[in-house]
Amino acid sequence: MGHRTAPPPISWLIKAALSRPKLISLAAGFTDNATLPVEFSRKLLNEILRSRKTGQPALQYGTTAGEEPLRQLTATHLQKLDGGHDSAHAPERTIITGGSQQFLYMTLEALCDEGDLVLVEDPTYFVFLSILQSRGIQARGVKLERDGIDVAHLETVLERLKKSGELRRLKALYLVTYFQNPTGATTTLAKKRAVLKLLQKFERDAGHPIYLIEDAAYRELRFDHGADVPTALTLSGAKNRVIYAGTYSKPFATGVRVGFGILPEPVYTAVLRIKGNHDFGTANLLQHLLARALASGAYDRQVVTVRKNYARKTAVMKRALAEHFPANVEIWEAGGGLYFWARLPKNISAGVKSKIFQAALKNDVLYVPGELCYADDSSRRKPVNEMRISFGSASEENIREGIKRLGAVLRKFI
Amino acid sequence: MGHRTAPPPISWLIKAALSRPKLISLAAGFTDNATLPVEFSRKLLNEILRSRKTGQPALQYGTTAGEEPLRQLTATHLQKLDGGHDSAHAPERTIITGGSQQFLYMTLEALCDEGDLVLVEDPTYFVFLSILQSRGIQARGVKLERDGIDVAHLETVLERLKKSGELRRLKALYLVTYFQNPTGATTTLAKKRAVLKLLQKFERDAGHPIYLIEDAAYRELRFDHGADVPTALTLSGAKNRVIYAGTYSKPFATGVRVGFGILPEPVYTAVLRIKGNHDFGTANLLQHLLARALASGAYDRQVVTVRKNYARKTAVMKRALAEHFPANVEIWEAGGGLYFWARLPKNISAGVKSKIFQAALKNDVLYVPGELCYADDSSRRKPVNEMRISFGSASEENIREGIKRLGAVLRKFI
Repeated sequence: MGHRTAPPPISWLIKAALSRPKLISLAAGFTDNATLPVEFSRKLLNEILRSRKTGQPALQYGTTAGEEPLRQLTATHLQKLDGGHDSAHAPERTIITGGSQQFLYMTLEALCDEGDLVLVEDPTYFVFLSILQSRGIQARGVKLERDGIDVAHLETVLERLKKSGELRRLKALYLVTYFQNPTGATTTLAKKRAVLKLLQKFERDAGHPIYLIEDAAYRELRFDHGADVPTALTLSGAKNRVIYAGTYSKPFATGVRVGFGILPEPVYTAVLRIKGNHDFGTANLLQHLLARALASGAYDRQVVTVRKNYARKTAVMKRALAEHFPANVEIWEAGGGLYFWARLPKNISAGVKSKIFQAALKNDVLYVPGELCYADDSSRRKPVNEMRISFGSASEENIREGIKRLGAVLRKFI
Repeated sequence: MGHRTAPPPISWLIKAALSRPKLISLAAGFTDNATLPVEFSRKLLNEILRSRKTGQPALQYGTTAGEEPLRQLTATHLQKLDGGHDSAHAPERTIITGGSQQFLYMTLEALCDEGDLVLVEDPTYFVFLSILQSRGIQARGVKLERDGIDVAHLETVLERLKKSGELRRLKALYLVTYFQNPTGATTTLAKKRAVLKLLQKFERDAGHPIYLIEDAAYRELRFDHGADVPTALTLSGAKNRVIYAGTYSKPFATGVRVGFGILPEPVYTAVLRIKGNHDFGTANLLQHLLARALASGAYDRQVVTVRKNYARKTAVMKRALAEHFPANVEIWEAGGGLYFWARLPKNISAGVKSKIFQAALKNDVLYVPGELCYADDSSRRKPVNEMRISFGSASEENIREGIKRLGAVLRKFI
């Protein structure tokens, strides 16, 4: 009776937020309301529903893999982002899903049995950890640096698994490669290459493929004018081992919830069958909306708007952090995404049960305690001195006020 | 590596349909394109997206359980259908999902471990059987009569499970209670009551709750002007044991894919947690569309349109069956839903590998072989002499022509 699925930490965070009307939430991963594409969506939906010819297919069932035009546009879009035409982006390897979250869930269903093992970054996306927990899959953390996973530590962990015989249970490594949730770190292409090579090296001892799951959810929320990093899909050998999770939810509209995955056989067929049992296809109306947004250029224009907005908000938060946070708090600033990552001195706890977290709540400001983003891995302690601070949904005024409140709390305890 | 999920029979049926352009499909469970609410949807979406005030929440994330107004409207809608105000319909027991399919999937995740047992009707909805197969859950068939499950046989099966000790693995009985897929049978309230009582009786020996999962997907596709049958939710004792799966997809628009479930604790909390891991909430845009359709009366008007259309199409199919099918084929006619159920003489096979199915395909007409709707249950043979024939998506002309072709094939082999 569902005994395996623990309560998700995110749900009580949301409840905590709802029960205090004056609370400023710097916790939620919500995007900014002000930039949601209300006008674009109305225009595009009007175009779709103007005639029965284009309206009917949008209101009817489609196929399990998703609408062919959207899969084609998705492949083209990624090829463009990656500056080339690699066949790893092909529509026949693409599946459209209810957000990238559903794709991650189904991928783990396809790859892992209970008791299997998945490597994750330390820290990582906490809902991914919830999936692992609920399915009885073990997680092991690999150290994360500001330019992505610590490759030397990954090798150490793999060697250790080899020695202990656990390599036979290892099915995948999960990386959030762009403006990582929660730290904002972006993985370099060199590291992706090194990681893929390492996984391949250990496959012989594992006796089966070890997949690299690349979660690129925040990829298009780049606002630092830096160059986009190519995905691991562009690497040689990627075609059989890289599983790419992408989404239109965050750059376009979170209420539209269309994500996608690109993946090799035999995982593609397995995920497709699982999707057949989950819902046999994501709502066509949403798919037609996204396809039209991509084809018309509305999507690209929306991404420009979103980026400008987050660039402004991140600058506001950066100034506020400089003004209000104690100098000995280390701040990781990202060139995209929704989050700042703050590391307090090692002896100070900002965890769920800490005085800092309680005081923040009492002062009507909420952040995500970093410890929630660490896998249950008994080989190391979970750090408790970290905080994920989001500028996604808060207004500029609330960002200033929220950081001021949080800074006051920190100054009191540090 | 996904080894447990078998290829779904439905996918190759769809492929077979797509590869023959002249093929008339009487197989698909699609609804009728002509009646899809293109105008309604455009109007309602325009209202939602006319202002940023109503547009933004529709394009933003919501909660995992679904939008409060839609849950409230759903509870009210069901109370109206059931002609009363039973608290079993309460919004706090309701979850909004990506079609009722997603709800069924998550419910089985919550209730069953690998090796557990679920009772189903003989025959039943084949995608439900796919979920069971993929999750390693055993299925046992219980005989079905034209007014619902054979209660005496249910008791026999339960007694047998008690004796064999397997009752300890039995978690639920799954019934498609309105215009059942595939037979069109509707379960009487008296039978629902008897079933619930029987399950309760055997709970002591099981050592845990045995839930009644009532799948009401076709409930609103009623066109026989008969009275609606109340759900099992209205029965005494239901509040703790009945799990109700409903959907707006079939009556409103299959491309909108909004379903819902009503369920007791502790299953509600378990399903909510699982939904948190699957996608943490169904796309808000779709939920806002449905809520506005329900609140404005557009939904009710759409249901009237759909019913009239299916009443016309079922009459067309009925006449064609009378004209073209051999007299010794038993036809189950339904007062709603999308299907006729045809039973050939017992020694004649209409199964997947039969001459009849192959000849039908060669003559460009497709049906669902009834055998696909039977659980893998070694205690009885799967009948192969049955066919599910749908009037859902085919035009009236194609219904006439399709039944004519099928009749010609049958006359050749019977």
